[in-house]
Amino acid sequence: MPYVNIKITREGATAEQKQRLIEGATQLLVDVLGKNPATTVVVIDEVDTDNWGIGGIPVTQRRLQENP
Amino acid sequence: MPYVNIKITREGATAEQKQRLIEGATQLLVDVLGKNPATTVVVIDEVDTDNWGIGGIPVTQRRLQENP
Amino acid sequence: MPYVNIKITREGATAEQKQRLIEGATQLLVDVLGKNPATTVVVIDEVDTDNWGIGGIPVTQRRLQENP
Amino acid sequence: MPYVNIKITREGATAEQKQRLIEGATQLLVDVLGKNPATTVVVIDEVDTDNWGIGGIPVTQRRLQENP
Amino acid sequence: MPYVNIKITREGATAEQKQRLIEGATQLLVDVLGKNPATTVVVIDEVDTDNWGIGGIPVTQRRLQENP
Amino acid sequence: MPYVNIKITREGATAEQKQRLIEGATQLLVDVLGKNPATTVVVIDEVDTDNWGIGGIPVTQRRLQENP
Repeated sequence: MPYVNIKITREGATAEQKQRLIEGATQLLVDVLGKNPATTVVVIDEVDTDNWGIGGIPVTQRRLQENP
Repeated sequence: MPYVNIKITREGATAEQKQRLIEGATQLLVDVLGKNPATTVVVIDEVDTDNWGIGGIPVTQRRLQENP
Repeated sequence: MPYVNIKITREGATAEQKQRLIEGATQLLVDVLGKNPATTVVVIDEVDTDNWGIGGIPVTQRRLQENP
Repeated sequence: MPYVNIKITREGATAEQKQRLIEGATQLLVDVLGKNPATTVVVIDEVDTDNWGIGGIPVTQRRLQENP
Repeated sequence: MPYVNIKITREGATAEQKQRLIEGATQLLVDVLGKNPATTVVVIDEVDTDNWGIGGIPVTQRRLQENP
Repeated sequence: MPYVNIKITREGATAEQKQRLIEGATQLLVDVLGKNPATTVVVIDEVDTDNWGIGGIPVTQRRLQENP
């Protein structure tokens, strides 16, 4: 019955990678807490880099500094 | 003053259906708890089927199994 | 498969009222979008009135102004 | 280490405005609680006006009433 | 930089189990997307069984039906 | 109409500090986007340090390492 929400920046995660996140998060709840996978929900939010900040600046600018 | 967040898969909900969700959720808070509808907020998130998992697999694949 | 999160201030909602919120929100998704109730999740968060603000002031103070 | 989520309607906020939200929210946590900005995360969600309701009606309709 | 929120019912998860959820969710983001663990945040919400519904009924009642 | 959710670890924030967070976040939305403060909602979640992880370890342990 758990609900897992994974927020990542929108930077090209593939359907296959998102499938692995869903599988992995569901399995984690089974392994650690014995939860029922059938009712475990995983929702992935992909957030534009303009809309995600860390250290007070948007990721868009951070990426430019990393790869000038 | 309540805040309601409804997450559904993005599978063609119409503006009229989303309006009914907003009306219904607001009315529910009025009916059950006597909340003030004027400050009740409802936010609907529509999530791509690749980004929503249940039972460890993405809804995209679930839909293919249901309608092969 | 929807997920509904209802946030209200912690001001004495009873177990019976919360049950009605769960029933009502689940039924709303069935009625409007034909969703499967068996996998519809509703989570209610009760938030201390010190931790909820509207109009820039905490609800704790708002309640004092309403009932001085 | 705080996490701040700002939800607004999608009505043309610019990258520069979103940058100011990120800066301002991060600074607020530094000023009030002495939090470390380096690990403070701010995520902005822009929500379609059809998907945001207040007072039981979608913002799309509210805007039409305000600007008929 | 990802943010993971895990919501579970409050039914006695230990600090050690919650530590394993934090480790496992962080590692998942490293393994699948190559994310930096140092800025990966995991927040676990434990929700009272009265406040969590599935299939339209609170988990409190569901547990009674399972273990009458 | 914005909604702001601030998540912090539960480490003794006072009612006065939480009031300043509510004021500051509301004012930020007014200043940057011209939002109406009357319908701006701020919700603060205080999370136990066992339930918050960064860098793959719970904040509880991080605090012990910082202050052995």
